[in-house]
Amino acid sequence: MRAITYSTPGGPEVLAWTEVPDPSPGPGEVLIEVAATAVNRADIVQRRGYYPPPPGASDILGLECSGTVAALGEGAEGWSVGDRVCALLAGGGYAELVTAPATQLLPVPDGVDLHAAAALPEVACTVWSNLVMIGGMRAGQLVLIHGGGGGIGTHAIQVAVALGATVVTTAGSAGKLAACRELGAAVTVNYKEEDFVTAVAATGRGADLILDNMGAAYLGRNIDALAMDGQLCVIGMQGGRVGELDLGTLVAKRGRVFATGLRGRPATGPSGKAEIVSAVTEQLWPMIADGRVRPVVHTELPITDAAAGQLLLDSPVTVGKVVLAVR
Amino acid sequence: MRAITYSTPGGPEVLAWTEVPDPSPGPGEVLIEVAATAVNRADIVQRRGYYPPPPGASDILGLECSGTVAALGEGAEGWSVGDRVCALLAGGGYAELVTAPATQLLPVPDGVDLHAAAALPEVACTVWSNLVMIGGMRAGQLVLIHGGGGGIGTHAIQVAVALGATVVTTAGSAGKLAACRELGAAVTVNYKEEDFVTAVAATGRGADLILDNMGAAYLGRNIDALAMDGQLCVIGMQGGRVGELDLGTLVAKRGRVFATGLRGRPATGPSGKAEIVSAVTEQLWPMIADGRVRPVVHTELPITDAAAGQLLLDSPVTVGKVVLAVR
Repeated sequence: MRAITYSTPGGPEVLAWTEVPDPSPGPGEVLIEVAATAVNRADIVQRRGYYPPPPGASDILGLECSGTVAALGEGAEGWSVGDRVCALLAGGGYAELVTAPATQLLPVPDGVDLHAAAALPEVACTVWSNLVMIGGMRAGQLVLIHGGGGGIGTHAIQVAVALGATVVTTAGSAGKLAACRELGAAVTVNYKEEDFVTAVAATGRGADLILDNMGAAYLGRNIDALAMDGQLCVIGMQGGRVGELDLGTLVAKRGRVFATGLRGRPATGPSGKAEIVSAVTEQLWPMIADGRVRPVVHTELPITDAAAGQLLLDSPVTVGKVVLAVR
Repeated sequence: MRAITYSTPGGPEVLAWTEVPDPSPGPGEVLIEVAATAVNRADIVQRRGYYPPPPGASDILGLECSGTVAALGEGAEGWSVGDRVCALLAGGGYAELVTAPATQLLPVPDGVDLHAAAALPEVACTVWSNLVMIGGMRAGQLVLIHGGGGGIGTHAIQVAVALGATVVTTAGSAGKLAACRELGAAVTVNYKEEDFVTAVAATGRGADLILDNMGAAYLGRNIDALAMDGQLCVIGMQGGRVGELDLGTLVAKRGRVFATGLRGRPATGPSGKAEIVSAVTEQLWPMIADGRVRPVVHTELPITDAAAGQLLLDSPVTVGKVVLAVR
């Protein structure tokens, strides 16, 4: 098969579409003929050499894909050859073929294009596991979503609104803020011009739940923006990893800070990916099928343009995900 | 009635046993004839002038008591005059009479002396709400309890062991460490001589749950000691309130930091004291009745010696609670 590979870590120019050995599905795994994959920030960090794949995972980039089931490994259950699926991967999505545990496949939701489905697994599993399964997001809450224009942000806004929460979101351009409002955000904050703590306070409430991708840079202000019994969920550290935490304010608010990654989770067992994928399929997929939540794809490029796709992720105009079409 | 009062904040010498007006129970409240109260660190901070009572609460010290029901306010249900009870108070326990919402009273557990029962409400509600209701403490977990010799520590060790957890605990003297082992702690760490992160690592595991009273001073090392999916619960800040939080380590461990106080909680509703008192009565009281958990009272002094009782709290030999007998 062919796949995007690189011989040494570096900038986007190191990526090349090359011939590599076909993967074969191990016990409990499924072989997928990839239709499309999508770009994640982790791909870029890995390409630069800073985010090695977990033990046993493919060293090919790509944490999600869509496609059709091509073969089943020993004991792999629940899928048949030819099924249209999307999948949460530990790696390997930037390729013509990829293997994944059968428990990490999801059906393509009703009404969603096969290529667009590649943009769903990472955002769906990240948002559902953090905001709903850990954070307990529910109707009536005020939810602050940072980076509202990104892949995770555009998805989180829709899920929060679908569940009946009120969304305040931050982004860095007027275009992104307009897109966030279209997705249902009640209050949008341009972080280059306004303070989000002030914007949250102007609603007359604190944030019951915050989804943060900035880490240390926003830690103190996020705690300031929390409501009583509020929770801060940190899933990215684009603003640094070590921040000052005022435990006095946290105690006074009975607050909670949690931080999770998706990639390092075990495939099965408590906290495993299978449990998340199953909850997403049962509870979130119906919201996509009925149109309350839709994949937000900014651009689709051929996989041979993976370098351009990665560059687009940090562009100020990109809203939502960048999909790379394989076939 | 008589109560411990003070005209200006200061050292223990400001406390005096004086005549004050009797309280009378409002709607939903119960009047308790106090048998005993117990000393909490918050009492000392309040006496120094740094911890004003919440709005509407008595300005008399004392966050818990035992005694007998003397009268019922309008609509107060579930109790009868003469019932032997203990109670979680927003203040007012250092007195001959005190009022409390009926929902904050607990029966004196079977087999527990009426005076010793005064030592239970704060530790029971603090430990149960944090470790069990929020932290989900359960059998098989490794639980690190800081300040194992204190009132909360001695209670937390017993509850953790009763639920089937393995306890690592820290304290500052050989006598306290011996008492912790008698209460069931598997590993005891003299924090003056050993590093608790090393002691936890020596068990071959990380801590699934940490109960911390040191705040900023232990924040970094507590995160280091956490297991995957581990949780740090901060209930005291004896080592400062602003600490450095490494979100990178927290993400890698999918960790959680939460911090709560008991006193500021509303009487009823979500996160309220009534819900905690009810869970404690139903789930923890049976463990006391069957002897798996017992009140640990270091000393009982007459209420007129409240100053001495408060001084004892910081003594290196005190293990467990200091009770002040009113009658």
